Amino acid sequence: MAQPTMGNQIRGNPGMDHKARQLRLRNALAAHRLDALVVTHPPNILYLCGFSGSAGALVLTHAKSLLFTDGRYTTQARSEVQGAQIVIGRKGPLAAVAYWLATHSRKNSHRRVPPFRAGIEGEHLSVAARDRLAAQLPSNCRLRLAPALVEGARMVKDAQEIQRIRAAVLTGAGLFERALAVIHPGVKETDVAAEMEYAARQAGAEAMSFPTIVASGSRSALPHGRASRSAVPARGFVVCDFGVILTDYCSDMTRTIYVGRPSSEERRAYQAVKEAQQAAVDAVRPGISVGEVDRAARKSLKNNCLVKYFTHSTGHGVGLEIHEAPRVGAGQTEVLQPGMVITVEPGVYLPGRFGVRIEDMVVVTERGCEVLTPTRKELIEI
Amino acid sequence: MAQPTMGNQIRGNPGMDHKARQLRLRNALAAHRLDALVVTHPPNILYLCGFSGSAGALVLTHAKSLLFTDGRYTTQARSEVQGAQIVIGRKGPLAAVAYWLATHSRKNSHRRVPPFRAGIEGEHLSVAARDRLAAQLPSNCRLRLAPALVEGARMVKDAQEIQRIRAAVLTGAGLFERALAVIHPGVKETDVAAEMEYAARQAGAEAMSFPTIVASGSRSALPHGRASRSAVPARGFVVCDFGVILTDYCSDMTRTIYVGRPSSEERRAYQAVKEAQQAAVDAVRPGISVGEVDRAARKSLKNNCLVKYFTHSTGHGVGLEIHEAPRVGAGQTEVLQPGMVITVEPGVYLPGRFGVRIEDMVVVTERGCEVLTPTRKELIEI
Repeated sequence: MAQPTMGNQIRGNPGMDHKARQLRLRNALAAHRLDALVVTHPPNILYLCGFSGSAGALVLTHAKSLLFTDGRYTTQARSEVQGAQIVIGRKGPLAAVAYWLATHSRKNSHRRVPPFRAGIEGEHLSVAARDRLAAQLPSNCRLRLAPALVEGARMVKDAQEIQRIRAAVLTGAGLFERALAVIHPGVKETDVAAEMEYAARQAGAEAMSFPTIVASGSRSALPHGRASRSAVPARGFVVCDFGVILTDYCSDMTRTIYVGRPSSEERRAYQAVKEAQQAAVDAVRPGISVGEVDRAARKSLKNNCLVKYFTHSTGHGVGLEIHEAPRVGAGQTEVLQPGMVITVEPGVYLPGRFGVRIEDMVVVTERGCEVLTPTRKELIEI
Repeated sequence: MAQPTMGNQIRGNPGMDHKARQLRLRNALAAHRLDALVVTHPPNILYLCGFSGSAGALVLTHAKSLLFTDGRYTTQARSEVQGAQIVIGRKGPLAAVAYWLATHSRKNSHRRVPPFRAGIEGEHLSVAARDRLAAQLPSNCRLRLAPALVEGARMVKDAQEIQRIRAAVLTGAGLFERALAVIHPGVKETDVAAEMEYAARQAGAEAMSFPTIVASGSRSALPHGRASRSAVPARGFVVCDFGVILTDYCSDMTRTIYVGRPSSEERRAYQAVKEAQQAAVDAVRPGISVGEVDRAARKSLKNNCLVKYFTHSTGHGVGLEIHEAPRVGAGQTEVLQPGMVITVEPGVYLPGRFGVRIEDMVVVTERGCEVLTPTRKELIEI
């Protein structure tokens, strides 16, 4: 492979209002006592200006936006970037940002204004990259850890984003039909994953949104049972957790099926997870906290004496990234707003025995929520 | 998907001498005036102790090794980790590292020794994570940016690693035969990629090592022409750049074929790249710098008046990561040693017209190098 690169398919982003997104962020800078925000997290850059190259940095000031990249991405930047001036740096984007900040803050110093404060994304910039950036700045330009402003904006999806997410969810759901067609005793988990991933490509997906999980038999008790070379046993649960990326947006769903005839204990566990999942979905509406959604799932499982086997959080935001804000976990205080898209995915895991998880994606509406995942949740026995 | 996770297939690592790797690093700490090294980059952790979970931190001191993870990975850590004590943290690995460092450095303070110096991986730890870690440490424990010690060690592969890389290269090369079988005028690039990726799964690969590049016609002039929905035209080059991950190790190769009959100019460009690639391969031997390998490719292309169209570096190290040290670029001074594995991949790109790239993986031997990629390099016309 020629060079490190992530997104490198040149494309436009019709329908996305990048300028408005940038403007909202730029207008928010003053409240955080920032003169500029240096955005380095690639999904945040994609969200704000449409640039999908792996080497880029977007600088927002009160007055304007600048996208810094290098010569490999000149054509791509010109085709993709909206609402921001493109600057091609010879020594890479961050060196170009440093040069621009230094020049810009020197201009400021002539006007005898206070130091120029540039916010950085602390969760996404490495210590070494920050140090290299800081070393090139004059004393009147200071780096500050900015709050997660772009992640905050990305939590609430606009109509164009929801349209794309809806399409990704439907494409993703189609893969489950393929899984049902190929799962049988003796088939390797990786072969099931291979068929699903092939179907995803055929359906136009750019990629899977994470390594496909196919966890059968006692492996279903592993919450992270990525498809292994194990064969599906003659009898037991098979957890299938998978998603696609379609026009940049991720899907994520889980269904658990049974090969053979389940025991009454297994059937009860499945019903308990299904009820808990429904209870959590029923809790989703504007104004309540994500912690309350998590609590609804836990309360339901507690009634069935299974809550101690529910060892992860109830869900997470989904969008340009497979995991993004908000985290739908115990004690989390983020309040749901219309347009937020989250997963609802309780599960129970009895170590060494079996596991069950059911996961939908839902979008918060004005009055409650809409379940985007179209797939039925009754236990399927193969 | 339940939780952010990367490698999550529990497995052993037979044949890998993790203890010796840790010991070499631990013995190197003193020379860098470090009392401990906090390893947070997942491929570095995998290399040193075999743990493949996404949430982990490995602390090496002069006396011992400790692997910190969380409760989701207890079973996996017990199965995978070699040569390190396992510590399960309730609030995540880095919080557990902070607690351990604080306790350990307090012990030190009783002995009236100088401050405890813990090295961090500056290129891989975020500013925010470093700040959270630092905030939990007492004043007699100080964080220091460590040099890239693990990356340095990983550059020279041992016999077990070369065996795995060899297997990955052969599996990867098999996909090219599949590409040849499906490429024809009118087929979509993504459909070619889908067939190759399906073949990879069928051959047992864990994943592709990077998004498959299939760049046809004028798109072949894009060094990063990730497979798009464009159809292969009736006439033109098709650059195929792809690789697999097999038992943790990456492969990487590029072949450029021609659909139809090439013009004499296109044929000359292909021959020039083939000669440049061979010149660079011929230059690879212990004791010369990677910059000299790059120069050999450039010199050859200069003789054919095409060097200005060669816009990237000649290659890079490959191993647990698709791009790792050393970078084989102009002016780079790293000296080749037996056991290093690099790509050799010159290319020429005539914007808007066509591009050609040819890439092999080679391992440096005692006297020269061995080309691992078995695939012929004569121009194939389809």
